[in-house]
Amino acid sequence: METPPRTRGAVRGGLAGFVRRSPARLAVLAFVSVIGVFTALLSLPGATSSGERAPLADALFTAVSAVCVTGLVTVDTATYWSDLGEAIILAGIAVGGFGVLVLASLLGLLVSRRLGLSQRLLAQNETKALRLGEVGLLIRTVILASVAVEVVLALVLLPRFLVAGESLPAAAWHALFYGVSSFNNAGFVSHAGGLPALDGTSPAGDWWLCLPIMVGVVLGSLGFPVLLVLRDRWRHPRRWGLHAQMTVAGTAVLLVVGAVLIGAMEWGNARTLGALPWPDRLLATGFASVMPRSGGFSTLDLTEMSTATWLVQDALMFVGGGSASTAGGIRVTTLLVLVLAVVAEARGDRDAEVFGRRVPQASLRLAVAVGLVGTSTVLVGTVAMLAITGDSLDVVLFEVISAFATVGLSVGGTADLPDAGKYVLSALMVVGRTGTMTLAAALALRESGRLFRLPEERPIVG
Amino acid sequence: METPPRTRGAVRGGLAGFVRRSPARLAVLAFVSVIGVFTALLSLPGATSSGERAPLADALFTAVSAVCVTGLVTVDTATYWSDLGEAIILAGIAVGGFGVLVLASLLGLLVSRRLGLSQRLLAQNETKALRLGEVGLLIRTVILASVAVEVVLALVLLPRFLVAGESLPAAAWHALFYGVSSFNNAGFVSHAGGLPALDGTSPAGDWWLCLPIMVGVVLGSLGFPVLLVLRDRWRHPRRWGLHAQMTVAGTAVLLVVGAVLIGAMEWGNARTLGALPWPDRLLATGFASVMPRSGGFSTLDLTEMSTATWLVQDALMFVGGGSASTAGGIRVTTLLVLVLAVVAEARGDRDAEVFGRRVPQASLRLAVAVGLVGTSTVLVGTVAMLAITGDSLDVVLFEVISAFATVGLSVGGTADLPDAGKYVLSALMVVGRTGTMTLAAALALRESGRLFRLPEERPIVG
Ligand SMILES: [K+]
Ligand SMILES: [K+]
Repeated sequence: METPPRTRGAVRGGLAGFVRRSPARLAVLAFVSVIGVFTALLSLPGATSSGERAPLADALFTAVSAVCVTGLVTVDTATYWSDLGEAIILAGIAVGGFGVLVLASLLGLLVSRRLGLSQRLLAQNETKALRLGEVGLLIRTVILASVAVEVVLALVLLPRFLVAGESLPAAAWHALFYGVSSFNNAGFVSHAGGLPALDGTSPAGDWWLCLPIMVGVVLGSLGFPVLLVLRDRWRHPRRWGLHAQMTVAGTAVLLVVGAVLIGAMEWGNARTLGALPWPDRLLATGFASVMPRSGGFSTLDLTEMSTATWLVQDALMFVGGGSASTAGGIRVTTLLVLVLAVVAEARGDRDAEVFGRRVPQASLRLAVAVGLVGTSTVLVGTVAMLAITGDSLDVVLFEVISAFATVGLSVGGTADLPDAGKYVLSALMVVGRTGTMTLAAALALRESGRLFRLPEERPIVG
Repeated sequence: METPPRTRGAVRGGLAGFVRRSPARLAVLAFVSVIGVFTALLSLPGATSSGERAPLADALFTAVSAVCVTGLVTVDTATYWSDLGEAIILAGIAVGGFGVLVLASLLGLLVSRRLGLSQRLLAQNETKALRLGEVGLLIRTVILASVAVEVVLALVLLPRFLVAGESLPAAAWHALFYGVSSFNNAGFVSHAGGLPALDGTSPAGDWWLCLPIMVGVVLGSLGFPVLLVLRDRWRHPRRWGLHAQMTVAGTAVLLVVGAVLIGAMEWGNARTLGALPWPDRLLATGFASVMPRSGGFSTLDLTEMSTATWLVQDALMFVGGGSASTAGGIRVTTLLVLVLAVVAEARGDRDAEVFGRRVPQASLRLAVAVGLVGTSTVLVGTVAMLAITGDSLDVVLFEVISAFATVGLSVGGTADLPDAGKYVLSALMVVGRTGTMTLAAALALRESGRLFRLPEERPIVG
């Protein structure tokens, strides 16, 4: 029986109304639903290699980790889950990563529509999709570009696994898995125990394996608004628009700073960088600098790094990647807007300026909100996890920020968690994944009804 | 031979010019000079009870800790230093505390003069001294009010020590020491091993000892601009002005939140609160909530508290007390301005508003600067201390924030530091003490020479 046209129209109208009224809430709802579906799938007895139903805490944690493209695991992906289970995880990554990109772009579209003409004209150079303003085309572009990048990465990685003696089906599966996992900044690995030591010693010096994964992670962490600009105007940085310029510059600075700090701190550590010949140390340093933001792969034993290096990684993870990307954190532009405001203040300028543009006050207020809410979330999550686990702050802070920023790196605090800890980290991943994105969009979409302004008074600050 | 009038005039003019041009730099210079003098004094052989010259690292650390009214110690104050040494420390606290108050008030005066008439009229209700605009009166007011409060505190404490069987000179000395130490938020104790267990078990349930110290610390942490307003208009909160209203309200909220969290987390801990009868638990909870911001006294064994409680204290310490007070941290109003901006953003309002007033954008930019610079300082200090000490992050972060915010609480990381660690913590105390205050003033004093504004462009944030 067909639904009568009038009812269908009302349903469609109501849905459209809900989307218009609270797109941020819709985004969260969509994410939670998808997580529910993948939790159910991973609870199938056939999803585990033992054939026993996975405990709810592990099924939920893994589903959240996959859909939120985090990569934290409570069980070893390759040994605990069956082939079916791994396929479900890969599907979760693909759906989650794609969902993030589409939702972020849609929210961006809504925001740019509400900002009025002058703002919209400026937002035009953000993505072609936004300019064309068509949801269908947007989704098609995201899918096509993602698949294209992932297939290229897989094709580059395939011969590496074949050369190492893997069978064609196994090599193809791993190549595809790492292609999807890296471009989506998911951090899941399909080999038992982490990235494979294909030459027998360690993956840390395996240039052929590491470089494609690094490229995939960095590209994925920039975000589609930037990727599309780069594709169209690669040779003309002045025409990239402020957002792409800030994201690329900020990413470059963070990569260099991270590499210098991690390299300096671990260079002589015989259990991490110190064990490698020095060209490989450079590779491993670069890899370790890329992955906190927020690829989540690792070629060195993080538990053997100094706690000072952990804290540097904490900071890199907290900042995360680009806006509207599969990377997490408070985002590169958020930090940059805050830093630019401080620089302007120090120079006595009223406006934060960069690349010949003025950053609006509204962006600063948004950045303060995202930064403060992010800090509070990490603080509350850390206090809760300290109370639950009894682990030291070094470990707990690392795992909490890794979850919040959907990074997936671990220094060992996630493996043997009590169920309460698994649920708290799951909540942090969901909040971290949907939070900053929807918070920023929701705030940007608000409009004040107030017409009068109160008298101004200046408190003493600092 | 007298200096010729002309030279004298030139010198005076040059000095006045320096004060006008860079008052913030002058404040730092004054602090460093005072620290140098007290380091020299504590390096006298007679300053130690053994009669041997104290090592430079300990003399410097103690001088910095006293002048910056921090209270962190590398040696036990009562046993390591002689009577002379303790008197030097008390003098350091008095000079440092007084210096902070005068410098902060002077900087406030300069800022309010530069802000133009409308701003100055609003700033009037901050302190009587600012309104009268006379440096001499300002200094006299600060001295008289400080001495008055400290003497009252000492008079209340004196009989407590007499009742406990101390001789009159000893009791008077301790009463004076705690009066000065508490009102200046210094956190130094003159009894061996910490606050004394006068009834033989623990100071945690000693209401007569704890309450005056708590009152002294809270009053001192509000800052003179607030204290003078309270003295004159105690019964008329609506006429306190925005700064005093924000400081008092923020302090009250932080005290309650701190007490609830610390109380909840330690209530059943048999080594801290759990060891006390329950009325005393309330006192000890209140005491533990007051002291992180930034009195620095302790009646419970902090090393026995859970690491989750440590992290709550870290957050309270980082926020600290009121502006232009002897308390440290980024200051209550700084946090409040940031939170109000987020609340306004969430409600879709353009302006941050509170108590019927609009907080200017300039205050938000200042708060962002103080918050971000403070966070960066703690981060860099923590990485350095992790690398130097090899202690766990729990301990290192606590000691670093305690130093930066001049709190003086310790969970054991300061007692056996290598010299490099002592110097880093000393630097953090100086930066924390002079930094937020002078940073805020320096930034507020800047004026832009730029007349044109660049075109605006909006990056994606979050
Ligand atoms: K990840
Ligand atoms: K103190």
